[in-house]
Amino acid sequence: MTRHLHLNAFLMSTGHHEASWRLPESDPYAHVDLAHYVRLARTAERGTFDSLFLADGPQLWSSVGQRPAGALEPLTLLTALATATEHIGLIATASTSYNSPYNLARKFASLDIISGGRAGWNIVTTAGAEAARNFGLDAEPAHAERYARAAEFLDVALKLWDSWEDDAIVADKAAGVWGDDAKIHPPRHKGTYFSVEGALNVPRSPQGYPLLVQAGSSEDGKRFAARHAEAVFTAQQTVEDARAFYADLKSRTAREGRNPDHIKVLPGIVPVVGSTEAEARAHEQELEDHIVHTHGVAHLERLLHLEPGALDLDAPLPDDLPPESAIEGAKSRYTLIVRLARRERLTVRQLIGRLGGGRGHLTFTGTPEQVADAVETWFTQGAADGFNIMPPVLPSGLDAFVDHVVPLLRARGLLRTEYGPRQTLRERYGLPRPANQHVPELPAALPQPSSALV
Amino acid sequence: MTRHLHLNAFLMSTGHHEASWRLPESDPYAHVDLAHYVRLARTAERGTFDSLFLADGPQLWSSVGQRPAGALEPLTLLTALATATEHIGLIATASTSYNSPYNLARKFASLDIISGGRAGWNIVTTAGAEAARNFGLDAEPAHAERYARAAEFLDVALKLWDSWEDDAIVADKAAGVWGDDAKIHPPRHKGTYFSVEGALNVPRSPQGYPLLVQAGSSEDGKRFAARHAEAVFTAQQTVEDARAFYADLKSRTAREGRNPDHIKVLPGIVPVVGSTEAEARAHEQELEDHIVHTHGVAHLERLLHLEPGALDLDAPLPDDLPPESAIEGAKSRYTLIVRLARRERLTVRQLIGRLGGGRGHLTFTGTPEQVADAVETWFTQGAADGFNIMPPVLPSGLDAFVDHVVPLLRARGLLRTEYGPRQTLRERYGLPRPANQHVPELPAALPQPSSALV
Repeated sequence: MTRHLHLNAFLMSTGHHEASWRLPESDPYAHVDLAHYVRLARTAERGTFDSLFLADGPQLWSSVGQRPAGALEPLTLLTALATATEHIGLIATASTSYNSPYNLARKFASLDIISGGRAGWNIVTTAGAEAARNFGLDAEPAHAERYARAAEFLDVALKLWDSWEDDAIVADKAAGVWGDDAKIHPPRHKGTYFSVEGALNVPRSPQGYPLLVQAGSSEDGKRFAARHAEAVFTAQQTVEDARAFYADLKSRTAREGRNPDHIKVLPGIVPVVGSTEAEARAHEQELEDHIVHTHGVAHLERLLHLEPGALDLDAPLPDDLPPESAIEGAKSRYTLIVRLARRERLTVRQLIGRLGGGRGHLTFTGTPEQVADAVETWFTQGAADGFNIMPPVLPSGLDAFVDHVVPLLRARGLLRTEYGPRQTLRERYGLPRPANQHVPELPAALPQPSSALV
Repeated sequence: MTRHLHLNAFLMSTGHHEASWRLPESDPYAHVDLAHYVRLARTAERGTFDSLFLADGPQLWSSVGQRPAGALEPLTLLTALATATEHIGLIATASTSYNSPYNLARKFASLDIISGGRAGWNIVTTAGAEAARNFGLDAEPAHAERYARAAEFLDVALKLWDSWEDDAIVADKAAGVWGDDAKIHPPRHKGTYFSVEGALNVPRSPQGYPLLVQAGSSEDGKRFAARHAEAVFTAQQTVEDARAFYADLKSRTAREGRNPDHIKVLPGIVPVVGSTEAEARAHEQELEDHIVHTHGVAHLERLLHLEPGALDLDAPLPDDLPPESAIEGAKSRYTLIVRLARRERLTVRQLIGRLGGGRGHLTFTGTPEQVADAVETWFTQGAADGFNIMPPVLPSGLDAFVDHVVPLLRARGLLRTEYGPRQTLRERYGLPRPANQHVPELPAALPQPSSALV
């Protein structure tokens, strides 16, 4: 079977470039406009993407002055999009630090049922004190503790999703028996962070449970991904770094006793597409010209855990930045930014320009052929199973990718030309439906005793 | 302006009668079938109902043997229904005991935005140890504590919904200023049950916040309703009881300094409709014949806080039941059931038959004219501002009400004949849009100094 690219559309209000909302074409209210997202979802479906995805954090950034802030709650928005689409997977970010397993497991099961098996969960632990203070805490929990809680959260969620066997409903009207109580398995979980006694109040969903997605690239994050994730979003700046990450994650997954084909690695790319290279560069420059650098400096200072005023716009990063191990927030993103600035000897102003597009994700700027070439290189050279497509401006950047890059990928045999029959999200990603932990699996194929009969 | 009935469609899988799922027409998988609910919602919209409503509790009842158990999570299902309807309000039940204010406030704001101002929140405190044990507690919190937490929860939620002024988004592309930070008001709430620091990450929604609905009729429940609720669901067995409840709640509301017209009282009714009275009675009997009495006894024993085996099917209720004040669960429902059994001298078997339709809500059995007469009597005699319609069987019971009772109510001038222009749910219920607590209200109409000029 031909290996195909897996494409995910990472949707974000007016686009991933921080200045995108200032362009004449952009709707500054797009972040709360269902019609905007319906249009994007249908465009991604026209491009036969595997899935679309919404990032999230349960807090408002400190200033709304800079750019569109806030967003519709992802599970709510994806439920609405489920009714407006037919094939595309729907991946919502949700935090293990600021949800309870019972409520969240139920919401994902409900979305999976309503969408006919198209739900995915981007599992995040949520860095930052702002979020913590919205949930009764004074400061953010330590990185390792957030991951310990995430592991237990997922364990409980899996118990809840498996608390109904697939055939627990017998619906015997004549006997007056609706369900088989022997096929209901209450978790009776008592752990460090959670106690959850009873079975979920939703039957097992089409996929069993949502596709498990993960996006942390720290040590804790990679360990978690190797154990649990079925798709991984990652930020990589060079094909060499991406290959190293890919090989590392696949081998970690194998060491956890899992099939390395059952974890799909999707680096993020910001495709800035133009009909000529010059046109693409001009578009990139137009976006960069709209960056408000004072905002960018403040944002970078927060990301690097520096005091306000610590950075000089026209100087390089200071030499005495702390190591990643001292960072409790978004560890791997921290390292990526520092390495990018040092490798390319960027001033703070230049760094802000480079980060403006994708916050650390790679920007590909060029013609459709050049973008398709880059995608093909990464895909065929062991750096990616597919891509997390992060258009700099929405909707136009997704239109450009689907109308001009997708046909090239199809012509090269790298991407499906149509969806074919309805599939679950897990089937689109080439993954098996998970067995229920309470149901012994049948051997896939018993050895045939044919030779004895010859 | 003519006073019109407010109708709410209380949707529940195959219907409100506990045996409804056993009828030949019923789909035992209806509880997780979006198409079933879309059909019901569109039928209610054909009947120009104000709203539809989903009950909920975050637990699975102990046995799935008896009847369809579990449900799609209400906010998820209502989001999907928002995209399939245009006018009808969408009221979700959600618990103040087992949610966090930040997450829940955001979900309701998102639904309100996606639906164009049609969201409502049925505020419940969630009785029962089963739910408590799914959220890390050993036993259910005491009734009074649940209500204290509910009051603080609502206070925080209102602060979150008001944390953006309506005109906080300025969208000045030229200046690069998206929002006005002076119009963002972080709650900075530190209370007994919750600490919530930051502003919501969704702008203020079309209604400001969802319609606030309440359904507890205990002392704590009525006090909460008088202070906060804009619509109240209640179970009343006689017009006299309903009138007393109505008068009491309106006067409590006035004593809280609120306009008593701004709380709408909607008793629940289970309309068993037939083209003749005999046909309606036969339908009721068919349903009663499908009740499995052993299940009914067990359920009644739980409701009355009795040991298993305490009730005798063919005897009346025991004399020595505890008073309502000793009940920590659903207090007012307890009293209603005991009073019903004693007033009508019912055996346990007869009581189970009477409760089978609406779990304590009044069953009206008769022709469309008889049902319309009863509705009109309650509505015009100070017992109701409208009704919570609880069809015994779905979809057929809602079809019968909309096709045969609704035209009579319209002909009598009691119900709107069409929706007219799009309105928010609060406008449908004749309620004003709530002001933002951070914005001083302008005087409605300044006294005109006209006489001085004469």
